[in-house]
Amino acid sequence: MDLLSLQEDIIHFLREDLGTGDVTSQAIFSPGAIGLATFRAKGQFVCAGMAIAAEVFKNRIAGLSYTAAEDGRLIQPGEEVFSCQGPVLELLQAERVALNLVQRLCGIATLTHFFVKEIEGFPARVTDTRKTTPGLRVLEKYAVRVGGGHNHRFNLADGIMIKDNHIAACGSITEAVDRVRQQAPHTLKIEVETEDLDQVKECLVAQVDIIMLDNMSADEMREAVKLINGQALVEASGGVNLQNIREIAATGVDIISIGALTHSAPASDISMELSI
Amino acid sequence: MDLLSLQEDIIHFLREDLGTGDVTSQAIFSPGAIGLATFRAKGQFVCAGMAIAAEVFKNRIAGLSYTAAEDGRLIQPGEEVFSCQGPVLELLQAERVALNLVQRLCGIATLTHFFVKEIEGFPARVTDTRKTTPGLRVLEKYAVRVGGGHNHRFNLADGIMIKDNHIAACGSITEAVDRVRQQAPHTLKIEVETEDLDQVKECLVAQVDIIMLDNMSADEMREAVKLINGQALVEASGGVNLQNIREIAATGVDIISIGALTHSAPASDISMELSI
Amino acid sequence: MDLLSLQEDIIHFLREDLGTGDVTSQAIFSPGAIGLATFRAKGQFVCAGMAIAAEVFKNRIAGLSYTAAEDGRLIQPGEEVFSCQGPVLELLQAERVALNLVQRLCGIATLTHFFVKEIEGFPARVTDTRKTTPGLRVLEKYAVRVGGGHNHRFNLADGIMIKDNHIAACGSITEAVDRVRQQAPHTLKIEVETEDLDQVKECLVAQVDIIMLDNMSADEMREAVKLINGQALVEASGGVNLQNIREIAATGVDIISIGALTHSAPASDISMELSI
Amino acid sequence: MDLLSLQEDIIHFLREDLGTGDVTSQAIFSPGAIGLATFRAKGQFVCAGMAIAAEVFKNRIAGLSYTAAEDGRLIQPGEEVFSCQGPVLELLQAERVALNLVQRLCGIATLTHFFVKEIEGFPARVTDTRKTTPGLRVLEKYAVRVGGGHNHRFNLADGIMIKDNHIAACGSITEAVDRVRQQAPHTLKIEVETEDLDQVKECLVAQVDIIMLDNMSADEMREAVKLINGQALVEASGGVNLQNIREIAATGVDIISIGALTHSAPASDISMELSI
Amino acid sequence: MDLLSLQEDIIHFLREDLGTGDVTSQAIFSPGAIGLATFRAKGQFVCAGMAIAAEVFKNRIAGLSYTAAEDGRLIQPGEEVFSCQGPVLELLQAERVALNLVQRLCGIATLTHFFVKEIEGFPARVTDTRKTTPGLRVLEKYAVRVGGGHNHRFNLADGIMIKDNHIAACGSITEAVDRVRQQAPHTLKIEVETEDLDQVKECLVAQVDIIMLDNMSADEMREAVKLINGQALVEASGGVNLQNIREIAATGVDIISIGALTHSAPASDISMELSI
Amino acid sequence: MDLLSLQEDIIHFLREDLGTGDVTSQAIFSPGAIGLATFRAKGQFVCAGMAIAAEVFKNRIAGLSYTAAEDGRLIQPGEEVFSCQGPVLELLQAERVALNLVQRLCGIATLTHFFVKEIEGFPARVTDTRKTTPGLRVLEKYAVRVGGGHNHRFNLADGIMIKDNHIAACGSITEAVDRVRQQAPHTLKIEVETEDLDQVKECLVAQVDIIMLDNMSADEMREAVKLINGQALVEASGGVNLQNIREIAATGVDIISIGALTHSAPASDISMELSI
Repeated sequence: MDLLSLQEDIIHFLREDLGTGDVTSQAIFSPGAIGLATFRAKGQFVCAGMAIAAEVFKNRIAGLSYTAAEDGRLIQPGEEVFSCQGPVLELLQAERVALNLVQRLCGIATLTHFFVKEIEGFPARVTDTRKTTPGLRVLEKYAVRVGGGHNHRFNLADGIMIKDNHIAACGSITEAVDRVRQQAPHTLKIEVETEDLDQVKECLVAQVDIIMLDNMSADEMREAVKLINGQALVEASGGVNLQNIREIAATGVDIISIGALTHSAPASDISMELSI
Repeated sequence: MDLLSLQEDIIHFLREDLGTGDVTSQAIFSPGAIGLATFRAKGQFVCAGMAIAAEVFKNRIAGLSYTAAEDGRLIQPGEEVFSCQGPVLELLQAERVALNLVQRLCGIATLTHFFVKEIEGFPARVTDTRKTTPGLRVLEKYAVRVGGGHNHRFNLADGIMIKDNHIAACGSITEAVDRVRQQAPHTLKIEVETEDLDQVKECLVAQVDIIMLDNMSADEMREAVKLINGQALVEASGGVNLQNIREIAATGVDIISIGALTHSAPASDISMELSI
Repeated sequence: MDLLSLQEDIIHFLREDLGTGDVTSQAIFSPGAIGLATFRAKGQFVCAGMAIAAEVFKNRIAGLSYTAAEDGRLIQPGEEVFSCQGPVLELLQAERVALNLVQRLCGIATLTHFFVKEIEGFPARVTDTRKTTPGLRVLEKYAVRVGGGHNHRFNLADGIMIKDNHIAACGSITEAVDRVRQQAPHTLKIEVETEDLDQVKECLVAQVDIIMLDNMSADEMREAVKLINGQALVEASGGVNLQNIREIAATGVDIISIGALTHSAPASDISMELSI
Repeated sequence: MDLLSLQEDIIHFLREDLGTGDVTSQAIFSPGAIGLATFRAKGQFVCAGMAIAAEVFKNRIAGLSYTAAEDGRLIQPGEEVFSCQGPVLELLQAERVALNLVQRLCGIATLTHFFVKEIEGFPARVTDTRKTTPGLRVLEKYAVRVGGGHNHRFNLADGIMIKDNHIAACGSITEAVDRVRQQAPHTLKIEVETEDLDQVKECLVAQVDIIMLDNMSADEMREAVKLINGQALVEASGGVNLQNIREIAATGVDIISIGALTHSAPASDISMELSI
Repeated sequence: MDLLSLQEDIIHFLREDLGTGDVTSQAIFSPGAIGLATFRAKGQFVCAGMAIAAEVFKNRIAGLSYTAAEDGRLIQPGEEVFSCQGPVLELLQAERVALNLVQRLCGIATLTHFFVKEIEGFPARVTDTRKTTPGLRVLEKYAVRVGGGHNHRFNLADGIMIKDNHIAACGSITEAVDRVRQQAPHTLKIEVETEDLDQVKECLVAQVDIIMLDNMSADEMREAVKLINGQALVEASGGVNLQNIREIAATGVDIISIGALTHSAPASDISMELSI
Repeated sequence: MDLLSLQEDIIHFLREDLGTGDVTSQAIFSPGAIGLATFRAKGQFVCAGMAIAAEVFKNRIAGLSYTAAEDGRLIQPGEEVFSCQGPVLELLQAERVALNLVQRLCGIATLTHFFVKEIEGFPARVTDTRKTTPGLRVLEKYAVRVGGGHNHRFNLADGIMIKDNHIAACGSITEAVDRVRQQAPHTLKIEVETEDLDQVKECLVAQVDIIMLDNMSADEMREAVKLINGQALVEASGGVNLQNIREIAATGVDIISIGALTHSAPASDISMELSI
């Protein structure tokens, strides 16, 4: 995971939470007071992003050393997942930002993990979407990978996705694919969103690289997969949940993309204990 | 709601989603193509933040005019909640950021609304916490207000909260309150987190302004409220959910703070339609 | 004092003073030349902010070690208040910014000190206002504390202050207080600016937390203090100077706020000596 | 005056003063309420920077129209120096930043004006120094010009100033001037700080462009001016005040530089009235 | 071309060129003086980026109207390529930045145009590389498109490129492709850099999407194209110049990538005339 | 060379090249893999800016140690000019930005070197102009110095340059010089751009410090130099190339300014080798 922008983001987050200063702690703790902070699980979850928590604390505490549970491990309630030592004033100023971040990341990894587990035995990949929290996309997509999922495109520049509006504006899938093939970098695959089997067929003729089946029934998907027959990657999208994902995977699609992984995962329950 | 930082945040969010450019749409749409974008509800929710969506589109389209459903209104599936007109290329570049923001804000307002509705008839306020998404605190706290809730402190500087660690470091609540009263601006109330009735009593002697009852049972809360008897505001905190909030409100507390409002509200389902 | 934003501010300040480079020194000193920089008092003042000077030098010199006079100590002319060692080129590039900052902070602490000393024996607090230098508020309010003063609110979000315009818009103090109490976070005290005793009485009925007596005579203040009688904090404001502050303190007010502390304190006289 | 960076600085200043929002006014005023803000002089001063105040308000109010007293005019108590109209909420959010800026700029212009007036009849220029408020240099140097003064260099890059340390490191003024002449852009004049007449003589031999007489007595200055005899510009510096500046000007120096113009000018007294 | 970051970059560029202000023009022109600025060609070139020049002037002049030669048109010496009207002070402050940008962009478009013209009749695409000027990549890649070229990947995230080091670390192309296919988003094609025909063959077995022939002779390339036979895109890279590009295109490769397009294109000669 | 802004610029450049992450290398290298990166010359050039390359790598690798060829040394093909060790993932992420920078800087130093060598024996200085790459001015002007050239003004604030438009607006050179002398800081020399000998004469009367001969023939320049006769510095400008510079230097001018040094220097050929 790239940390280049992370430093700046963390400063931004800390400033949001700190305002003009921690009036309570500054009145009580001396700058010299040292403490040990421990993050403890209060529920079950897949561990993700403790290195991010560490980055938050590092912003406040030069030369921080810490221990952290490994990304991807299934954590049980009561387990310690992160700990570090430093000035109490700094630990308390980093606490909330660090927790807010890892609770979200663990939540996403955990939800992803459940989806992935649900389709064990099938070759299909679970992927995320662009339905991420504004400002946190790189982190959230990292959490998806930690949970066993894969990433779809990160932004509008690193993947071509021809949707209904594009098709309508061009008159046909064929024409849309042509225009894009003419202009876009040759390094990107071309994906087309389809609504029925006729569109799927047109995609095959146009030799698109990835065919998205949008909100199709399992039967339609099965049919589409048969038609496509390995000539393109097949992505199922729309309305996927823990109840229906196994049936979808069984249709033979290659990719199942799920917005809920990042927009609706409940936060994992983690709290910080401080011993001074 | 203050929009001063919002402009910068929106640029940051758009850049995250746009990368080096929308390779698909740029190959297909001419800069002159004009479209009408409509956000349509695909589920029920409390409307919140369509003005924020408008700000996102305004960033791309100077002089934008738009219509938007009123904040706080309960929206039914199929309703149109926002629409605006402009160059298709710009509408598509703003789409995902605008949707990601309002789906989250509506989700928070909706969850808050359910909590508030649950305690109808009781004077208690539902409030948020600092357990917000890093980078989105001001917006999320706005959504809480839209949903009928109130805001707790925005950051470590605009509210004094004496917690267990502060008390331990000082030896007593009395000493902690003294130190803070000596140093902190006189404009802030002093809140103390208590775990049992003895601590509540000590708070009363120390004349604190707000007493938080942390993870107490309903019975303990009732007892505490009786003890406090109007000498301080009483805040219930910890483990509040839609099942137990009415019982908590019935204890007579003034404030019920709930982290889940902002850290675990599922996104509302909204999609953008584009007619060209 | 929080240093989170300080790093960025210091870069901004250094860039302002450095432009595209120190053309004089770069032509004369080799990068390897090492020097010892000493800040020496050329007048009497209360020491404040030498740690800020250190931060400026640290920006240019990794691993800087320094000695500094303690904040709050009364310095005599000729005393050394700060010294550090490092590459001459870096010392000279940090010199002016560091001096400009500490001369201002010492000036503020010194002026505050004189006001505080003037009311020795009275319980009243000397506080600052929002009349600070744009961009330097957190630092200047720190200097006020060093000088023995206290801080009023840091910004429009961490204190409620109902002024004449608010009252006029609502029709009455009572209505203004009601609206604010309904909407603002419960963690903030409510302060009302009053111009006469009738307004003071209305404040008492409305149970406001802090009553500001704006530009009242000492007699009026004494009267107001009697009326309020401990039911609210009392703040004197407007036209306070070293000549009248003792009389004001004698009226029994709790807080005396003074804009001049930050907007008109003359700089303390400090110069840097460099030995190579 | 260049406004390129000003927009960013103003956002920074407004954010400092606004925090997460004006909790008082937001609870009281509706977004639609319109008001008229007027800045009124409460003392005598030289007007400077009302256009800066306008920029602050413009940041909040698109298409602002305003009236402003002309820069450089001597203002009498009670005069209106600035007025503009707009939403009350925005006027109140810009008020303090706008006032804090113009009170300082008027203060500087006023003090400069007094120094300049003191030496009427002499050709000498009053100039500022680099002893400005960090972050406000361009604005403060503008105020100096408004007050009738001139600017010295803006930063370490746009003026060459050889000081005692530079001379010591080179062994002689001659050698220092040589090194600088060899390396620095040919567009900059070379100024040397001198402590006695011997150094002045060495400067003349080295053909420096500007000779600074540092902390010399009036007699020494007179002697130096005679020696220099038009071969270089002569700058007096150090310990200049309103009492001794006329005597200094009478020595025949070309430039008199005064740090106090920017580091110790008391703020002018201006307040904002709001009619709704 | 996306202009989202451009506004910020232009401010940065203007600040670099303006410093603390245009001392010459400010002393001479009144703020009210209006002028007409015209960019005139002093040599032959392909026009590119006049809209960028316009953005620079817009930064200084609200509501600017301008005329500009069309991107891609071959300009003859003496032709006018851009003109706009506005305050002289602002025109002069934008002049150098605007010229520096368009001279570079026209230079790149012109060089690209010559390469593209050289291979007329062949289907091969001329593409750029990541050897662009730091900070100007999006603009420079735009100029390549204007000149008739195509873009290779914009950054390390929107294209997969397996190079010698990657292969060495994995032991084989096959293993490297496997690892990447396992982890990278499915939306990206996989490109492998090859040095000889054995590697080309291994690529075909591994079913890579794009095979780069690095620094191969024309004969080797011809051989490789025959081997690949449409199973992957073929890219020629390394040592391409105007002398050998036609021979390279004749080998049947699909893509010819050229670093010199962006790192060594001489600036086109354009100057600004100002009539007042 | 000042590195204050460089840190920020490097982050900006790295982000441009990295996007959301190096998808290829992240799939292949483990974070622990260590490598040795070496920059090797593939052509002849003057070494410039390896310390800048080091800064790029330092951004990714804390505590980096490196070796680098000395600035100004003439490098032969095959020579190693820079090497450092660190995690392979970080080396690969810094590679392209570091190379893009030093290839440009070496290119500029090399071209400058050729110009300077061409006029060996004459006292004239070769200087750059403001025709630099937007965003890279300080670095490019450093490379000019490394190549043996000198710097002209860095921006519009650190040099006065009266051009044809200024003269036209004032009616005469005399009036233009007067206005500027009246207003601009006394630390800057006054330079005037002249087109013929009459203007040169007017400059002498007006006692300007530097006279620029714009696009004059060698004969005119010789005449002008004779006229000026040491009363001002003389700068030749316009149409200077490697063919005519010696003739220009022979006219006796003091300064020869050349835009091509920075706007048209071809990149030096350097590549990075990585051993793992």
